[in-house]
Amino acid sequence: MPSTKDGTLVWKDGLAFEGTGASGLTVRFDSTAEEGGGTGFSPMELTLLSHAACMSMDVISILRKKRQDVTGIEVHTHGVRTDDYPRVFTDITVEFVVRGRNVDPQAVARSIELSETKYCSVGGMLNKSVNIKTVYRVEEESR
Amino acid sequence: MPSTKDGTLVWKDGLAFEGTGASGLTVRFDSTAEEGGGTGFSPMELTLLSHAACMSMDVISILRKKRQDVTGIEVHTHGVRTDDYPRVFTDITVEFVVRGRNVDPQAVARSIELSETKYCSVGGMLNKSVNIKTVYRVEEESR
Repeated sequence: MPSTKDGTLVWKDGLAFEGTGASGLTVRFDSTAEEGGGTGFSPMELTLLSHAACMSMDVISILRKKRQDVTGIEVHTHGVRTDDYPRVFTDITVEFVVRGRNVDPQAVARSIELSETKYCSVGGMLNKSVNIKTVYRVEEESR
Repeated sequence: MPSTKDGTLVWKDGLAFEGTGASGLTVRFDSTAEEGGGTGFSPMELTLLSHAACMSMDVISILRKKRQDVTGIEVHTHGVRTDDYPRVFTDITVEFVVRGRNVDPQAVARSIELSETKYCSVGGMLNKSVNIKTVYRVEEESR
């Protein structure tokens, strides 16, 4: 049986909406500061972060299963969008910086590949229209 | 020239990551409570909310341009996902409840149509793979 997710948004003021999801947590959305808002996340900003978070959770989860001694992960994501409406992302580049002790770069590469091709739900939707590229770097934990 | 958006995620603990986007605001991601997390949003939860927020901003923006006296908007979104990986949404239903004084249902229908077909960036990506349906209801503001 397919599972479901529900969410609710309530209009606050201007273009700002407060969202509540299945977790019970709330998040504020707004237009950007340049557009006269700036009191919350823009929907495209959170979509970009959600995609990177989806991949990041897969990566750390798989690296732990592979018994890699990971001490830190930092992820940078960069989206390029069209100027024409609907101003979609055409390209997203996700950069993983994995820090740890003797972390095998092949394990990192494999965890990213599994996320891209099998596990990441957000990517599984976006990759139908967005060119998604992933790069990574492994850094040795000093002492 | 195409515009860009950037974001950064930092691993906190377990599967939890803290994300920072172009707005400078931070949001915490985590696996769901059922999966042993529950201290933040799930990426799919925020993607679902971001899509509805994207449409909601379009709708209120267009209704104000059409000089509709809107006093409140509540939006419910419902996503159905597959059980098989990558567990994408196959269907999303967004329900708009627009409250106001003499709000023209045709104006609401048109604002939703414009968001769906022209303006909503998140929808412009998701609709390549997700069946998105929108319904609405107009309620008269009492007194």
